[in-house]
Amino acid sequence: MKQIITFGEVLMRLSPEGNKKFMQANLLEFYFGGTEVNVGISIANFGEKVKHISCVSDDFVGDTAISYIQKFGVSTSAIVRSSKPLGVYFLEVGAVMRPSAISYNRSHSSFSDIKPEMVKWEPILKKAKWIHWTGITPALSKGAYDTLKTGLKLAKEKGIEVSADPTYRKGLWKYGENPKDVLSDLLSYSTIFIGGINEINEVLETNYGYSNEDFIEASKELIKKFPSIKKVFDKIRTPINSNWHKIRARMWNGKEFRETSDFDITHIIDRIGTGDAFAAGLIYGLQKFDDCKSMEFASAACALKHTYEGDVNYATVPEVMGILDGNTSGRFNR
Amino acid sequence: MKQIITFGEVLMRLSPEGNKKFMQANLLEFYFGGTEVNVGISIANFGEKVKHISCVSDDFVGDTAISYIQKFGVSTSAIVRSSKPLGVYFLEVGAVMRPSAISYNRSHSSFSDIKPEMVKWEPILKKAKWIHWTGITPALSKGAYDTLKTGLKLAKEKGIEVSADPTYRKGLWKYGENPKDVLSDLLSYSTIFIGGINEINEVLETNYGYSNEDFIEASKELIKKFPSIKKVFDKIRTPINSNWHKIRARMWNGKEFRETSDFDITHIIDRIGTGDAFAAGLIYGLQKFDDCKSMEFASAACALKHTYEGDVNYATVPEVMGILDGNTSGRFNR
Amino acid sequence: MKQIITFGEVLMRLSPEGNKKFMQANLLEFYFGGTEVNVGISIANFGEKVKHISCVSDDFVGDTAISYIQKFGVSTSAIVRSSKPLGVYFLEVGAVMRPSAISYNRSHSSFSDIKPEMVKWEPILKKAKWIHWTGITPALSKGAYDTLKTGLKLAKEKGIEVSADPTYRKGLWKYGENPKDVLSDLLSYSTIFIGGINEINEVLETNYGYSNEDFIEASKELIKKFPSIKKVFDKIRTPINSNWHKIRARMWNGKEFRETSDFDITHIIDRIGTGDAFAAGLIYGLQKFDDCKSMEFASAACALKHTYEGDVNYATVPEVMGILDGNTSGRFNR
Amino acid sequence: MKQIITFGEVLMRLSPEGNKKFMQANLLEFYFGGTEVNVGISIANFGEKVKHISCVSDDFVGDTAISYIQKFGVSTSAIVRSSKPLGVYFLEVGAVMRPSAISYNRSHSSFSDIKPEMVKWEPILKKAKWIHWTGITPALSKGAYDTLKTGLKLAKEKGIEVSADPTYRKGLWKYGENPKDVLSDLLSYSTIFIGGINEINEVLETNYGYSNEDFIEASKELIKKFPSIKKVFDKIRTPINSNWHKIRARMWNGKEFRETSDFDITHIIDRIGTGDAFAAGLIYGLQKFDDCKSMEFASAACALKHTYEGDVNYATVPEVMGILDGNTSGRFNR
Amino acid sequence: MKQIITFGEVLMRLSPEGNKKFMQANLLEFYFGGTEVNVGISIANFGEKVKHISCVSDDFVGDTAISYIQKFGVSTSAIVRSSKPLGVYFLEVGAVMRPSAISYNRSHSSFSDIKPEMVKWEPILKKAKWIHWTGITPALSKGAYDTLKTGLKLAKEKGIEVSADPTYRKGLWKYGENPKDVLSDLLSYSTIFIGGINEINEVLETNYGYSNEDFIEASKELIKKFPSIKKVFDKIRTPINSNWHKIRARMWNGKEFRETSDFDITHIIDRIGTGDAFAAGLIYGLQKFDDCKSMEFASAACALKHTYEGDVNYATVPEVMGILDGNTSGRFNR
Amino acid sequence: MKQIITFGEVLMRLSPEGNKKFMQANLLEFYFGGTEVNVGISIANFGEKVKHISCVSDDFVGDTAISYIQKFGVSTSAIVRSSKPLGVYFLEVGAVMRPSAISYNRSHSSFSDIKPEMVKWEPILKKAKWIHWTGITPALSKGAYDTLKTGLKLAKEKGIEVSADPTYRKGLWKYGENPKDVLSDLLSYSTIFIGGINEINEVLETNYGYSNEDFIEASKELIKKFPSIKKVFDKIRTPINSNWHKIRARMWNGKEFRETSDFDITHIIDRIGTGDAFAAGLIYGLQKFDDCKSMEFASAACALKHTYEGDVNYATVPEVMGILDGNTSGRFNR
Repeated sequence: MKQIITFGEVLMRLSPEGNKKFMQANLLEFYFGGTEVNVGISIANFGEKVKHISCVSDDFVGDTAISYIQKFGVSTSAIVRSSKPLGVYFLEVGAVMRPSAISYNRSHSSFSDIKPEMVKWEPILKKAKWIHWTGITPALSKGAYDTLKTGLKLAKEKGIEVSADPTYRKGLWKYGENPKDVLSDLLSYSTIFIGGINEINEVLETNYGYSNEDFIEASKELIKKFPSIKKVFDKIRTPINSNWHKIRARMWNGKEFRETSDFDITHIIDRIGTGDAFAAGLIYGLQKFDDCKSMEFASAACALKHTYEGDVNYATVPEVMGILDGNTSGRFNR
Repeated sequence: MKQIITFGEVLMRLSPEGNKKFMQANLLEFYFGGTEVNVGISIANFGEKVKHISCVSDDFVGDTAISYIQKFGVSTSAIVRSSKPLGVYFLEVGAVMRPSAISYNRSHSSFSDIKPEMVKWEPILKKAKWIHWTGITPALSKGAYDTLKTGLKLAKEKGIEVSADPTYRKGLWKYGENPKDVLSDLLSYSTIFIGGINEINEVLETNYGYSNEDFIEASKELIKKFPSIKKVFDKIRTPINSNWHKIRARMWNGKEFRETSDFDITHIIDRIGTGDAFAAGLIYGLQKFDDCKSMEFASAACALKHTYEGDVNYATVPEVMGILDGNTSGRFNR
Repeated sequence: MKQIITFGEVLMRLSPEGNKKFMQANLLEFYFGGTEVNVGISIANFGEKVKHISCVSDDFVGDTAISYIQKFGVSTSAIVRSSKPLGVYFLEVGAVMRPSAISYNRSHSSFSDIKPEMVKWEPILKKAKWIHWTGITPALSKGAYDTLKTGLKLAKEKGIEVSADPTYRKGLWKYGENPKDVLSDLLSYSTIFIGGINEINEVLETNYGYSNEDFIEASKELIKKFPSIKKVFDKIRTPINSNWHKIRARMWNGKEFRETSDFDITHIIDRIGTGDAFAAGLIYGLQKFDDCKSMEFASAACALKHTYEGDVNYATVPEVMGILDGNTSGRFNR
Repeated sequence: MKQIITFGEVLMRLSPEGNKKFMQANLLEFYFGGTEVNVGISIANFGEKVKHISCVSDDFVGDTAISYIQKFGVSTSAIVRSSKPLGVYFLEVGAVMRPSAISYNRSHSSFSDIKPEMVKWEPILKKAKWIHWTGITPALSKGAYDTLKTGLKLAKEKGIEVSADPTYRKGLWKYGENPKDVLSDLLSYSTIFIGGINEINEVLETNYGYSNEDFIEASKELIKKFPSIKKVFDKIRTPINSNWHKIRARMWNGKEFRETSDFDITHIIDRIGTGDAFAAGLIYGLQKFDDCKSMEFASAACALKHTYEGDVNYATVPEVMGILDGNTSGRFNR
Repeated sequence: MKQIITFGEVLMRLSPEGNKKFMQANLLEFYFGGTEVNVGISIANFGEKVKHISCVSDDFVGDTAISYIQKFGVSTSAIVRSSKPLGVYFLEVGAVMRPSAISYNRSHSSFSDIKPEMVKWEPILKKAKWIHWTGITPALSKGAYDTLKTGLKLAKEKGIEVSADPTYRKGLWKYGENPKDVLSDLLSYSTIFIGGINEINEVLETNYGYSNEDFIEASKELIKKFPSIKKVFDKIRTPINSNWHKIRARMWNGKEFRETSDFDITHIIDRIGTGDAFAAGLIYGLQKFDDCKSMEFASAACALKHTYEGDVNYATVPEVMGILDGNTSGRFNR
Repeated sequence: MKQIITFGEVLMRLSPEGNKKFMQANLLEFYFGGTEVNVGISIANFGEKVKHISCVSDDFVGDTAISYIQKFGVSTSAIVRSSKPLGVYFLEVGAVMRPSAISYNRSHSSFSDIKPEMVKWEPILKKAKWIHWTGITPALSKGAYDTLKTGLKLAKEKGIEVSADPTYRKGLWKYGENPKDVLSDLLSYSTIFIGGINEINEVLETNYGYSNEDFIEASKELIKKFPSIKKVFDKIRTPINSNWHKIRARMWNGKEFRETSDFDITHIIDRIGTGDAFAAGLIYGLQKFDDCKSMEFASAACALKHTYEGDVNYATVPEVMGILDGNTSGRFNR
């Protein structure tokens, strides 16, 4: 079985239990996460072989991050080590109208230390069928951008599928490159676009609105500009408040527009990593199903992720399929 | 005050805190439960004298189970011990569209070791006014079936009230008897039937639907076949998702059909044992109130149980009455 | 910057985690609170200088209470000590239709020991711009009433703003004074009335209803009787059940009636102290904004408090303003 | 089987986990205890029938105390209720040279409310073979003293064994009686004295030292003054520091002096209730063994108690016997 | 790098936190363990490639066990699944003179279901350099014995090193075979004997004492009877009490007797798995060092294991070497 | 009352509970600490007025650090904020021969951002009587060194006492300055030297041994080189293992050598911050007692700190005095 490759930073997440503020707590729950490794673990939970590439700290925190990833059967053999610390983020979980708050300690992390020569792309991609990247990675450091670019280039040469989730987070871009240029460069090696109007407007420098019509036009323009891209998938979140969201998805695959109905997520357990669960669902789905079923699988996976604590989607394929089959009322599995 | 007797397996329940998966946890909450002991404890919390009969392991786990039951003032003097381990079940609590998952380790438990000669039915029933059984017990072993049958037979002779909750759980019946025959045999000693269309269809081999009309017809046929049964009570659960259910009840007492309106349980704490709370509410109610008020008391008790962690209903009679009086908005009790 | 003064009992709050009953727990979470100190801490979190006056036990529990208050930057230099124990209250948190239950152990607490000579009102009020009191304090002991009265009298002389939250809790008044007389006496020194129909009816011995019309009439009569009072603010809670409330506010400032729309609080974390958050919001607001904006600020602060565990409102001014600006869907703060 | 009766206050104990200070904690562990109920529970764990008499609060805290005692099979049918709160004590557990610190909130507790007419001594003592009292009870209130005295008097008339542990704690005696007189009065009904030089000196107003010779002389004088007393048992604690104690015992039974060797308790888990475990061991032992073996059983029980968290001694008779048989190296019980 | 193979049951271990009794707890810590998998994980922590063979339950508990083993980088690809439950053991941790207590629920576990045809020994052993077994496995079921024997036979043919830890636990042998015969049969395929006088006496039916002289004689007789065995290693534990042990080791390798000095383990954290850490240390050491250094490495590893919670030895090679280099005073690693 | 000033980094400390490895945990306890703030808080616990100067992150983590310091009544008004993250350290607590392990994430922390112009030394020192510094601060960044130097210079001018704890930690010095030169520079403003042979050898470039004779000679040479230094205090730790240390102290005050006897700390709770407790004890003591009594006070404070969890010494003056009075056996404080 060929592998799916994810590449990106592994962060330690620290948050007080429940809805406590840091000022109220003396214990913090911790998880490891990061958008790309979340995608990788989620795909491994669907039964695929996955390898995650990263650079983690050369201390017991880095050891713990690696062991956390191994727990899910994801290969960590291409993870390298640095004397810099693992990136950390702190999270206070909101409720009702109170938003969650996040504070990062990642700007001099072990991952930002990565350099192209630290990753053996050739042997890795020889055994790979898919590589997934996000817009977080090239935002972190020149080394991260260069390393990713080296991999994507080789992937394109080898005809490996490249999915892009070019999330644009302004606060991260500090090392001097222009986000639009970098993302455009990386999109030129990509085949699947996972993102919405905001991401498209960012790379195209356009002003599309949020309607389905605009989405179709925007997708068309995107595909025109980046002809390697064949399909665009967009997950739409409608938050009522911090505890209650609705989730649906839409797609344009160059031929047809499709959209799903809403999942009503009335009691969110943890919304971090739900976008990653969507991406993972797509990557899995597009290997097994048609585009529309893939989108539905992805949005059910995304909905299910809201019910798991931590960054990781624990849902298995039968569990996602159960949701698609309409079993959404939570009857016991004995 | 005469006692109410419950007879059945005591299980240890183990589950991660909150909505965690086992893979995420390193601590498990534990409770003791089991449908019949849940009923017994709930009735004791209503102020009645209750004795629970069971067979538990002869180790510190069994000691703990006994001490757990004593805590509620339920008599444990008729609990016997076996060198086999106490039955265990593992629970992962779902959320929204994710169902809870349960895995049992009970097939060679101490309770399945029980034999008729281990229970002194004669002196126990001499001081009893009611005995309650469920369809779980005769499913577990020949010894459990025989022991229960011995007790019910004697109860019938003594004119003691016998309530039956003949829940049919297919996966449990492994020792060779036919569920329909066994349940029919035991129903022939029973006076109150607590169950719905599925249970009636199972024992009558019929195909009634879920409408009120069907319920009335089914109840009539049931009473015809088992003339010792005088009343049929059915609790109806309408799940929106794992966190949000609606609960109501209906009854046929040979003379009239009645039903309650819905309780809207928007933020479920724990739904295990809610059916047992209904049964306990009925058993208590039928000694104090008319049939319809008993059903209302039972459905309020059932609704309240959704707000307690663990298998046990902690609600007292004044608390249930408060709900029946319309105090459902949760104003503080200072 | 002049100080805002709060005066009242500090209680230790003890409750099992989550929705557990005491019978299920072996750990209790503890917080410190008390309606007046809650108001003080909340105002300090808005950036004001606050001093809280109280009498706490002369043991490590009292030390802990003081350190808890200091944590928020509230001055504790006027807190005195007594050999009597700190007051305690026990809380079982309800859910859905189950109400929370509270049991107090405060009748011989250190605070009830307070005497006028223990508080140096003159130097304290010299540096003060506002003093806030509630109806709990004069209910506790003659000494507490006398001490408060001494302070309010002096405040009136100095022209310091005096806000009154004359909550009437019948069970507390045990030392012989008539609640109506005492509250009337203290209201005669007050300038802002925070309370609703029940409180007004109590002090006026009237029977106003809950409509806006009645509220306006009642407020007018109140102001007539207590001419130092200029404004009346009322917070209205509409509970659906223990987990789900709606909150709005209304006011009469002698010239105009205004009311806010509802905040829909679908998943309450902790409702204790939400009224105190309203009072704190008003006290802060009335120094910065017009009356109507102050009321809106206060009701947003009150709504936000429902999302914090414990008695204290952690919301800062920008966080409350964010809610007023319509950001109620809980988008992440990164 | 006749019952053993204990009579005394039930307190709630609250302490941070491990060696934390209150200032460091936000969770408190709680247990119920009190010297007499500790003795009662420990005897119940040895397999005897025990009834505890007390007065607890009429709220969910009192309910929890009762349920805690029932857990061990101790009869709670003679426990009465009061509207006053249950007594509480706060504990910070020391380590090495740091002493543990305790703060009480018991002076207006439900137990201090007890009156002779609230206890039905006649029917209770009819089924009793032994009653145990301590010097804490008569220190708490006149009502407590009178109630105890009523019981002891009747016990003496009925020829029931009366064991006295007249611990003298100066800080408690606040209601006006002279401790020496009260303790002497109660000792005149007692048959077994459990206490050391300090207690004897207190009631005899003597100045004996701690040597064995002094102990023998003191015991003789005590027996001379209180001729109903037949035997004196003394437990000697030699603390190295908060974590490491040595324990031994000695006795004078009117005929011979005996003493045990030391138990070396190198890693104390919890020393509260160890004296109560000694008393319970004696009460159990004196019914089964000769005086010397009883003392050895009691001191092994006392040593074992140091290994259990909370106030209660969980050791069973076979476990204590195992220690007496020399199995003190902690080999696994599989 | 060739693999080291371990084969045996994986058990879930459940114990209250700290030194609590089950009766005191409502939370249980859980770990996975089992003597052979403990050895495997410990060797993996030394940097070797390890594969563990077992049969676990086909539910989320079994999934969790597998994920736990993967966390350490141990291959789980040869673990098969059964519909029977995973074996469980309950542990109450003792202190000072109180022994720890263990209760098993393993007699009908998934592992006892294993059959020779479920393990592909040929391909597994082709890539193996060492296989380790213990006396627990053949005690559990005929299938377990047969499966193990099939593997050992093939290992002998292939000249793979076979280490035996023939721990004899009487209570386990329930399926009808004679322990002495079975263990002798399996020893005939083994090359390294890890065990002491008790184990040798059991298989030789001799009565050697515990002196070094007896150990040498016993080892000689053992090697004479089982000529494939070349070396005998014995770990000696001298318990002072449950918290304080001394550990040393001795060996006879056919040529010379050697012994280590004592490690003084004054504050044990967890002694379960310390024997497994010794075996793992030997298996690692004998591949890198001479016999005596291997024994010293193993006893330092064993000593270190007493400082880790759970069954697993987390010590790495540099950490063990640090101890051997005399760094036993616990100076900080910064 | 004049203030004592401490200046230095505030770090967040994160460690699993008990002796767990990160790999075993999913919760981390957190504390704030840092050698200088530990000293400041400890002195505040002795009843002195203390101000701590630092630079912390401008997020909720920094808010929490400030609130943590305020809890102890230490003034935080001179703490400035930076957009860089708060420094963090991770700790795995060892046991017996296993050393604790620490990993830092502090090299780009908010504190390393500090610049001389950010601290208003003039007004701060006007109200100060003492300033304390350690060798950690100048090791962190040029800005930290410069800021400290500015303060010390001014302190010398104002004749304020300056205590130096020039701990030399090699791994920290990364910004280019020579440690010996920097420490010498800062010592030239100092009046009290708290450190041992290693620190003296480092700044003098000598090779003194650990004997008392060498200590006296070394101290004399130090004082000769830095004539502003009047007294040298050295704390000597003799570790048996991670759980068991002995502590004593010695001093040379230019006139006499004195040393204390050992404290035997048999069951360490937390050894972090014990050196800081020694420094705080000295700073407090030297204001109240003679040099020798100050040293004894400091070493008792240091010994007591081993019994508190976290970095902070909670001991009060009466508690330290109790130890000096010989009350080291841990008798209860009721």
